[in-house]
Amino acid sequence: MNLTILTIGTELTRGDLVDANSKWLAQKLGDLGYEVTEIRCVNDDQARIVSTLGELSERSDVLIVTGGLGPTSDDLTTACAARLARVPLVRDEATLQHVRGIFEKHNVAMHEMNQKQADFPEGAKILANALGTAPGFSLRLGRALAFFTPGVPAEMRHIFETGILPALPPLTAPLSMKRLTVYGVPESQVAGHLEDIESRYSIPVGYRAAPSEIEVKLVTRAHGSESQADVNARLLAAFAEVQTRLGGYLKVEGRTPLPEFLLQELGRQNQTLGVAESCTGGGIAHLITAIAGSSAVFRGSIVAYHNDVKRSVLGVSEATLAAHGAVSREVALEMAEGARRVLGVDLALSVTGIAGPGGGTPDKPVGLVHYAASTAHGSVAKVGNFRGDRENIRRRAAVAALLLGVETLRTPR
Amino acid sequence: MNLTILTIGTELTRGDLVDANSKWLAQKLGDLGYEVTEIRCVNDDQARIVSTLGELSERSDVLIVTGGLGPTSDDLTTACAARLARVPLVRDEATLQHVRGIFEKHNVAMHEMNQKQADFPEGAKILANALGTAPGFSLRLGRALAFFTPGVPAEMRHIFETGILPALPPLTAPLSMKRLTVYGVPESQVAGHLEDIESRYSIPVGYRAAPSEIEVKLVTRAHGSESQADVNARLLAAFAEVQTRLGGYLKVEGRTPLPEFLLQELGRQNQTLGVAESCTGGGIAHLITAIAGSSAVFRGSIVAYHNDVKRSVLGVSEATLAAHGAVSREVALEMAEGARRVLGVDLALSVTGIAGPGGGTPDKPVGLVHYAASTAHGSVAKVGNFRGDRENIRRRAAVAALLLGVETLRTPR
Repeated sequence: MNLTILTIGTELTRGDLVDANSKWLAQKLGDLGYEVTEIRCVNDDQARIVSTLGELSERSDVLIVTGGLGPTSDDLTTACAARLARVPLVRDEATLQHVRGIFEKHNVAMHEMNQKQADFPEGAKILANALGTAPGFSLRLGRALAFFTPGVPAEMRHIFETGILPALPPLTAPLSMKRLTVYGVPESQVAGHLEDIESRYSIPVGYRAAPSEIEVKLVTRAHGSESQADVNARLLAAFAEVQTRLGGYLKVEGRTPLPEFLLQELGRQNQTLGVAESCTGGGIAHLITAIAGSSAVFRGSIVAYHNDVKRSVLGVSEATLAAHGAVSREVALEMAEGARRVLGVDLALSVTGIAGPGGGTPDKPVGLVHYAASTAHGSVAKVGNFRGDRENIRRRAAVAALLLGVETLRTPR
Repeated sequence: MNLTILTIGTELTRGDLVDANSKWLAQKLGDLGYEVTEIRCVNDDQARIVSTLGELSERSDVLIVTGGLGPTSDDLTTACAARLARVPLVRDEATLQHVRGIFEKHNVAMHEMNQKQADFPEGAKILANALGTAPGFSLRLGRALAFFTPGVPAEMRHIFETGILPALPPLTAPLSMKRLTVYGVPESQVAGHLEDIESRYSIPVGYRAAPSEIEVKLVTRAHGSESQADVNARLLAAFAEVQTRLGGYLKVEGRTPLPEFLLQELGRQNQTLGVAESCTGGGIAHLITAIAGSSAVFRGSIVAYHNDVKRSVLGVSEATLAAHGAVSREVALEMAEGARRVLGVDLALSVTGIAGPGGGTPDKPVGLVHYAASTAHGSVAKVGNFRGDRENIRRRAAVAALLLGVETLRTPR
């Protein structure tokens, strides 16, 4: 099955926006076992949209198109699809009522140009959009089954889940999959332990590396006349072997980003979390609070960017700062201990470091980060020398601290 | 001039990575006056890479290709370019020494497969890569001048600046440009004030909308035999008119993100900044500290996610919390006043709100955000009803607070 994606919009070819829709679609489809072979993006140019739709519909079984379904003169996608299919545009009364209803709900008069959003190529199947004015639609174009959605990410995702997913052609063999997330180990090291898994179980091992974790994915299908029970048995055997090989690392079944893993572990142990941040500047708290429900265990963070705040709010001692400097093991420990006391939490994490680009010295170069964890049972500090630019160093420092948090919770006492 | 971009890599078509290189290139090229008409992305498949290079090189004057120049068997780009150009691969001894040198510097033995990175299509011009092992190269392919770079973002950007930019075909007429950043106004409102600028000055007005600001761009070239002095005069007249029309809004010449604008204003007035955050969870501090040098004016943030922290660290009164709830104008004001005192700053900003998806009530729905600013001259609070998902609401709340900070600093006393 050949699957391609086309995103339409001058805001993309001009570089105003990053094409996050394509990434999201490609990842979703990949997880389901479909393989995307090509992603294209063109500007709002009628001739180019028609010719690109033509090319892709000849070389794809499934084509997913996003963008250009809005009401303005730049929004050309529907008309281009109709032109390529050599069918007229037909107004859909139910959609017109839906669009009108949205305007009425917001007490705004509907502009005449919004009527355009109720026009579809004759024969198209309309895909409802509960989140906005522009529905999607599907249409046979040449060899391809083509799906069209608005470019607004939330609406695109909604239409994908409710309208496209159920209509995708089934894969010839269903896909069986197992996933494992491993924390704090480089991809090459994980891969080194699993080199012979593919040859032993006929299951390729896939890796997805994020800054904080490696996702290990085993995906397989029935080989020849293999029964589904045999496929499952083969997959489970391979997965058990993978878990054994990675026995020494922090890991969890499924796909779980590190901040979520830490929150789960805190919830399981009924513990609360607080943070003291210098160079990460609120980044750790921001990562944690991005997760809905984090308030169950997360109490707060003291972003102590200036040394006065380290002293006055966290209680780091003047003597320690003078003797060791703000970026030191000793200050990281006092920050964590201070945060635990001030925020009234069971586990406190702290980070102090030099994110650059300025501020480095031969003794304390850019990238040097001290971080610590404190509980009622004691405190522990670690040090990292992180590479990359300011953004990278800050992200790596945040990840290191979160990882130390999980390790601390997992340490037997 | 027709300019296209091709990015190569299964990690992109599989959705593991977002294609940030294309966005960066498109924006850079757009700022220089080049127009990108199409961006493509294909997986690591030799036949598809060759056919796509063939198609794009026939319809482009300039083609920029990133990815697939590494040492592994997945890295096929160089071989595909040579095949399409019908020339052999030739090993470059200077590049081989460069690659060998990098390995020696890190005390690692060079793997034989890295020799491949010193191979180039015969006749290609090598584009040096000071940051990594894989140089880029340029080559005439069909109609197009094609440039190839590694996919590693820092290396791609480096080769673009040092090797591609100086070699791009000159634009037929040089470009004159003026930029203005406007804060806290919707794009439609800004555009409404400037509708007749294009017809009066023959200069199209471009907009780039970020969550926190609108960039207004005037770009023009000599018309017919117009002299460069006349172009400049026309541009300056139009720009002066734009500034007059937007006289009532917060704005600054050039491209300046809101957090940077706030920091500049603080520096100019020699004032320090602190923050108290609830629903933004460290996001405001993280935005500010992303800017190198922010430590000159930024002291810290109290992320008071739990009410206990609002009370104990910021001194928000029990009575206020009980009477009005944590998401209220009164608590926002006490948070800002508390942060000003605790962090010892001249200006403190605060945010408390309901980011969702849970936690909303009919009285206080998801998206309700109270925010405040406090200085020695008094405090001011505002309220927002922000739409979108959790991430959007948190971002909009942070932007609103930063904007209130600038407004507060600009208020005559």
